Amino acid sequence: MASKVAFQGEHGAYSQQAANKFFAKKIETVPCKEFEVVFNKVKSGVIDFGVLPVENSLTGSIHKNYDLLIQHKIWIAGEVKLWISHHLLALPGVTLKSIEKVLSHPQALGQCEGYLKKIKHIEPTPYFDTAGSAKFVQETGDPSLAAIASAEAGKIYGLKTLGSSIEDNQNNFTRFIIIRKSLKNNMSVKKADKTSLVFALKNIPGALYKSLSVFAIRDIDLLKIESRPIHGSPWKYMFYLDINGSCGDEKVAKAIEHLKEVTDFLKLLGSYVRA
Amino acid sequence: MASKVAFQGEHGAYSQQAANKFFAKKIETVPCKEFEVVFNKVKSGVIDFGVLPVENSLTGSIHKNYDLLIQHKIWIAGEVKLWISHHLLALPGVTLKSIEKVLSHPQALGQCEGYLKKIKHIEPTPYFDTAGSAKFVQETGDPSLAAIASAEAGKIYGLKTLGSSIEDNQNNFTRFIIIRKSLKNNMSVKKADKTSLVFALKNIPGALYKSLSVFAIRDIDLLKIESRPIHGSPWKYMFYLDINGSCGDEKVAKAIEHLKEVTDFLKLLGSYVRA
Repeated sequence: MASKVAFQGEHGAYSQQAANKFFAKKIETVPCKEFEVVFNKVKSGVIDFGVLPVENSLTGSIHKNYDLLIQHKIWIAGEVKLWISHHLLALPGVTLKSIEKVLSHPQALGQCEGYLKKIKHIEPTPYFDTAGSAKFVQETGDPSLAAIASAEAGKIYGLKTLGSSIEDNQNNFTRFIIIRKSLKNNMSVKKADKTSLVFALKNIPGALYKSLSVFAIRDIDLLKIESRPIHGSPWKYMFYLDINGSCGDEKVAKAIEHLKEVTDFLKLLGSYVRA
Repeated sequence: MASKVAFQGEHGAYSQQAANKFFAKKIETVPCKEFEVVFNKVKSGVIDFGVLPVENSLTGSIHKNYDLLIQHKIWIAGEVKLWISHHLLALPGVTLKSIEKVLSHPQALGQCEGYLKKIKHIEPTPYFDTAGSAKFVQETGDPSLAAIASAEAGKIYGLKTLGSSIEDNQNNFTRFIIIRKSLKNNMSVKKADKTSLVFALKNIPGALYKSLSVFAIRDIDLLKIESRPIHGSPWKYMFYLDINGSCGDEKVAKAIEHLKEVTDFLKLLGSYVRA
């Protein structure tokens, strides 16, 4: 039976493409309205995996998903990077001249700002979703509307491509994580070369430096650090760390034990193969 | 002559309140449509100061302003923290029952989600600005509309308060920085006890740890670390650091010199008095 993989958005979303790229075999993708629904479906066990964007190479981290990673008991089982290429899509037979409004997620509109400014008569209009905006153009049948979404979304909703790869900066990649309910077997940890964890520091001098030293003294490379506010404790932060190595490696396991001495809160999010 | 202080938003914006709190004397506040306009006006010298939100205690950093701090030659001259308290505002004579839509910045709508869910007949509607949504309700004269903004905005636009401090979490503070064209005299640096800087690391092993060690070995506390993607270099980051002390202190100056050995890019953003 094909694995079920939940993603946020409509069919044709970049997250769905990321899921297909990661699994490279037949899967059943399940669209969800919100990121939180993806977490809930995976946690409850009705869906095997979830795929969630966590970072874009131009705009930075998707903080909502970082925050949800603390709240939900799940395990990061993998990651995948996807090149994001936006297309201007409209109903068949429609030409650029008759388009009045272009709908898409505000981030996609922003990434195509230069292209859109050149076509002066088109008004950029925020929509909740990229693939959703393509679906909306199909459903309304309105020839004055266009959408910015993936080529895949164009195919799914029977739209014509008026412009390909219209983003201003082509170094546009998104990194997605694959989540599952729990660590099923140790195989994935054995092959893993990347570990994600999150912690809150004790209120002691030099705490952040000390927390990073537990990795440095063991020659474990830091791949990424991200801070998020702690609700209810203004100007205090959770730190999200990606490090080189697997929690199955002795030196990583020792570093994490050592880290507990300078942290108030510590959660291992997962060990997996680096994309 | 009163100093001119630029802020993003309409009259009644939280940024304008932050400016008045910081200067505690008569100033002339100048509304600007976008953050970038504030930077440009200060850089060109037509306005003396700018006030910009950089961090909220619930939602985290305002990344747009972090990114603009690199692009513009300006100096951080101070900071101020403001308690954010949202109010539900409508035209005089209007009652809660007749409200159909509530307009505000999506972040303000999110911060009042619990309150709004209890009033089932009101539809939350995104608007570009908090104070701007109050101005819009006044201008349209539409009794079915309400806005979420500051009490100050309610007064300015002659609106009635239907609900006070309606935010779900009252630990809602925003930190603003005060920018000016350049360091005018050394006075502010002498009194300063906080320094902000931004850097990109050389591609050497343990670079992040080494960059933080230049402060740790001199007992200089790290107050905040924030990473932002570098455009055109996927998965590489700029690090924004707030540290204890002034760039006028010998040990801070030495640490910054030392930091240059492990960085490709380094910009001192300012030394100022901690709020």
